[in-house]
Amino acid sequence: MAKSVVHQFFELGAKRDVDGAWDCFAEDAVWLASEGSEPGTTYNKAEIRDLLVQMDKLGAEVAAQGMAGVFEEPVFLVNGDQAVVEWSLRAADGKIVERGIDLFTIKDGKILVKDVFRKA
Amino acid sequence: MAKSVVHQFFELGAKRDVDGAWDCFAEDAVWLASEGSEPGTTYNKAEIRDLLVQMDKLGAEVAAQGMAGVFEEPVFLVNGDQAVVEWSLRAADGKIVERGIDLFTIKDGKILVKDVFRKA
Repeated sequence: MAKSVVHQFFELGAKRDVDGAWDCFAEDAVWLASEGSEPGTTYNKAEIRDLLVQMDKLGAEVAAQGMAGVFEEPVFLVNGDQAVVEWSLRAADGKIVERGIDLFTIKDGKILVKDVFRKA
Repeated sequence: MAKSVVHQFFELGAKRDVDGAWDCFAEDAVWLASEGSEPGTTYNKAEIRDLLVQMDKLGAEVAAQGMAGVFEEPVFLVNGDQAVVEWSLRAADGKIVERGIDLFTIKDGKILVKDVFRKA
């Protein structure tokens, strides 16, 4: 089976291919961040590119501090169009400092929704 | 197909059957709350009963204020032993004031892990 767009998104992100990662999102995609008062903050397709650039920089900074953002293998839901990815931020000593879940909704082979939740 | 223990848990909770809801958890179950510094706080089986009593009281208080805790239908993951439940807290006017996800892990027909994440 071909790799899902969710797998592709994380692989491209790991390669620091911002435009490739951005292309995984549908034109009408939304990224619902965990932070913000809506609750969460909604980013549209254009705003998602800025977010990916920010996250790429943040990832490099975190790595430079010996920390690691760890993403587990995507697991699909039985409805077939959603997948969860557990993630964590780990300190240099391996201690988990943050944990969360991304809930993805796929449409026509693209990411339609990236809904982020975390411990807080 | 028989209803899953996750379905049973929410049905018993809605009926305010605290002991029935508690019985849905395995003896070695953990409830990983979204709040707390571990990140999240870990409650064991004995502590889960206190938590259920607290949440039952809180649910009644919230309802008395015209607010509603809304739990979506559980959706299983393709691995067969996990399920996600999206939840929200809504004000009297229907406005969503908080959203989150419970990620359940099932073992031998009981809840082994209830891992709670939210917007924050």
